[in-house]
Amino acid sequence: MPYGMKSKIPPSVVKRLTKYMAHVQQRQNEGVEWVSSVELAETLGLTSSTVRQDLSHVDFFGVSRRGYEAEGLRRVLAGVLGADKAWRMVVVGAGHLGQALVLHDEFSRRGMKIYGIFDKDPKKVGMKVGKLVVRSMDGLPAFVGQNEVDIGIVAVPAEAAHRVADLLIASGIRGLLNLSLTHIVAPRHVPVVDSRIIASLLQLTHAIQQHVPASGGKR
Amino acid sequence: MPYGMKSKIPPSVVKRLTKYMAHVQQRQNEGVEWVSSVELAETLGLTSSTVRQDLSHVDFFGVSRRGYEAEGLRRVLAGVLGADKAWRMVVVGAGHLGQALVLHDEFSRRGMKIYGIFDKDPKKVGMKVGKLVVRSMDGLPAFVGQNEVDIGIVAVPAEAAHRVADLLIASGIRGLLNLSLTHIVAPRHVPVVDSRIIASLLQLTHAIQQHVPASGGKR
Repeated sequence: MPYGMKSKIPPSVVKRLTKYMAHVQQRQNEGVEWVSSVELAETLGLTSSTVRQDLSHVDFFGVSRRGYEAEGLRRVLAGVLGADKAWRMVVVGAGHLGQALVLHDEFSRRGMKIYGIFDKDPKKVGMKVGKLVVRSMDGLPAFVGQNEVDIGIVAVPAEAAHRVADLLIASGIRGLLNLSLTHIVAPRHVPVVDSRIIASLLQLTHAIQQHVPASGGKR
Repeated sequence: MPYGMKSKIPPSVVKRLTKYMAHVQQRQNEGVEWVSSVELAETLGLTSSTVRQDLSHVDFFGVSRRGYEAEGLRRVLAGVLGADKAWRMVVVGAGHLGQALVLHDEFSRRGMKIYGIFDKDPKKVGMKVGKLVVRSMDGLPAFVGQNEVDIGIVAVPAEAAHRVADLLIASGIRGLLNLSLTHIVAPRHVPVVDSRIIASLLQLTHAIQQHVPASGGKR
């Protein structure tokens, strides 16, 4: 069991833990040293009993009348979420999204580092993206092994996504972040998390429609 | 109630409906005319009873021994999800991610169109991103009104996210896609959907850690 974690945590709770950590960090940046479950609840639109129950999954004792000690809580959440490790990543797909990920400075600030970006398009191979150069897919398996890459980010079109995922898995990757619309079937020891802007947008347009039953979107 | 929808659908089901639609479209591109609940279930790692129960939320009668009639199912799912409308969007934040969204051709293929991109940084205002020119934040409220913009995409750093969301809401936006780590509190009639790569990555690193309790990620 990783540091700070009592038992298997349900996925919905894990999602909220990422939000608690983000909020605590933001408050720490503002110089705040204590956060309360009431504050967390109000900011995130939850009940404070949900917050307390969620945080009962992590092994943290810095609770007082003033609330949770911010730095201690941040550290234990980071431990549970793996945010205290330096994860090594590669991006497959040097389209606009793949490039944006490499250029995004949020990752490195969090100790996550993109070591390589790959594409099958010979026109993209050799292109500079930030400090990286787009590599050919042929070199992917060796690269993953030599650089002990942990995470593969699948940023290719739907048709190619499963082939890319299979190659990453065969190369020994430990987990996949899937940005494509394809559902990826992976062996049990390789977790896959989906993050798709299109799917989120469709959840949003569905919700907007529910609020305006008669008309929905325009034209 | 929008076309094809029987009653309020739980968020977890809505998420799966986006996956069913993506799969049906992919199979249609391959020339397939019928899809079965067993096929959907196997591809997406679900039980076929989950698939059947999910699809019982939508008003669709094209079921036969051969399964679901693909085009009919696609159309009814598109209706429920709002994918059959031409939604108008703006992006706030002309960083790497905001620019990638404007350049991403997946949206326009799905009838979603980004009409404008905004940034508060004078150095970015006036910059060309694809066919758009980055606009100053001052013009945002008028632009949203004049162009009847439905959706605002919040692609700014966490510190600025709520201010941007408030401005979009005051401008009359109908829904927000939040790419920032900040939790956005919006009035009931303005749905907000979060889509955050960092949060997804933390779910992934948490899951990877669970599989390798002793060591976790590398330095």
